[in-house]
Amino acid sequence: MEDEEVVLLSWWASVFSLRVKIALAEKGIDYNKKEEDLFNKSPILVKYNPVHKKVPVLIHNGKPICESLAIVEYIDEVWTSSPSLLPQDPYQRANARFWAGLTDKIYPCARRVRSGEVGEELEAAKVELVGLLKLLEGELGEKPFFGGESFGYIDVALVPFSCWFHTYETRGGFVLDEECPRLMDWVRRCMERDSVSKALPDPCKVFELNRELIKKLAVQQ
Amino acid sequence: MEDEEVVLLSWWASVFSLRVKIALAEKGIDYNKKEEDLFNKSPILVKYNPVHKKVPVLIHNGKPICESLAIVEYIDEVWTSSPSLLPQDPYQRANARFWAGLTDKIYPCARRVRSGEVGEELEAAKVELVGLLKLLEGELGEKPFFGGESFGYIDVALVPFSCWFHTYETRGGFVLDEECPRLMDWVRRCMERDSVSKALPDPCKVFELNRELIKKLAVQQ
Repeated sequence: MEDEEVVLLSWWASVFSLRVKIALAEKGIDYNKKEEDLFNKSPILVKYNPVHKKVPVLIHNGKPICESLAIVEYIDEVWTSSPSLLPQDPYQRANARFWAGLTDKIYPCARRVRSGEVGEELEAAKVELVGLLKLLEGELGEKPFFGGESFGYIDVALVPFSCWFHTYETRGGFVLDEECPRLMDWVRRCMERDSVSKALPDPCKVFELNRELIKKLAVQQ
Repeated sequence: MEDEEVVLLSWWASVFSLRVKIALAEKGIDYNKKEEDLFNKSPILVKYNPVHKKVPVLIHNGKPICESLAIVEYIDEVWTSSPSLLPQDPYQRANARFWAGLTDKIYPCARRVRSGEVGEELEAAKVELVGLLKLLEGELGEKPFFGGESFGYIDVALVPFSCWFHTYETRGGFVLDEECPRLMDWVRRCMERDSVSKALPDPCKVFELNRELIKKLAVQQ
């Protein structure tokens, strides 16, 4: 499609922003990226996502779309010349939405692991996070990707977390290659795709960011 | 469609179960309802929703679908002879998913209002809940339904909360007809539909249930 104006308000380490970057890359869509400063949100972010004031926001021909999974579905529905991210079969689509929705559990739990918790609270969060990742590994099974043979919606929704894995491992004191080796093989398989490897930031840079965030939030409390 | 076996595992006062009941009624689908006891979950619920062990679960020809909004989309995609609940336009679809997703904020907040909180905590939860409902009222605007002229996806997602409004009002000490009168007109408009009025339980029965739940949970703590 020509004469399309596509703008993405995003933040480089946001797993939710990364989903949209991967989906746009999978569809081969050119866009303007506006990097947000989460500690000093831009007027355009507040204008286009007044309810949550959060990235990502996709602005397509002047119209904003918010919430990462709604954006990925939108991209999939609008740019149909590239392969579909969601399967066609309603049951498989429902299954894809179910597993992508598991991030409602993963994200808050991962946040507790990385946010400087210690002792019993860290231990509980770590056990829960590893349990959730093992659950994902069980769902993946022997398939190369969550939807089967090809990279799709669940992969787009989940693989952004992998750039935070080094941070979770280091803070939580566990090794994901030991805990869920097949899930880590899936991460490596996803990273063979340009759409993923070009979008995801260096895990060491994410770790450094997290260290800075913990310091900053400790000062603010 | 004939020879369909449709079973719904649900709980009478669950807003998430009620969404599915309304969607099934809108589509004119016959189904077997299995009422769950949330304090003693059935083996079939644990078997078909092993991840969350929560209602609702729709079992269609032996295959389970979990998570209420994924179920509503599934119903909409499978039973296409009745009018679609989601709009056809991708931008409007994304908008519908966005507003339906606001329940991720409404539910925990409403729970704090109804769960026996007092003092500052109740006050904060109440202010947040009324703010969210006013936000919905703003989105509704002058339209009869959230999607425009016809009852659709956002209405299905949100109207189940209305059978809890009496409970929120009584515990929170506010009157929704004063706080957001146009939203309450929308509730009454939805209640003119059999799909809604036959699904939603009596608000007084919900209030009594909530009183029992507070007692029960206080004993368990």
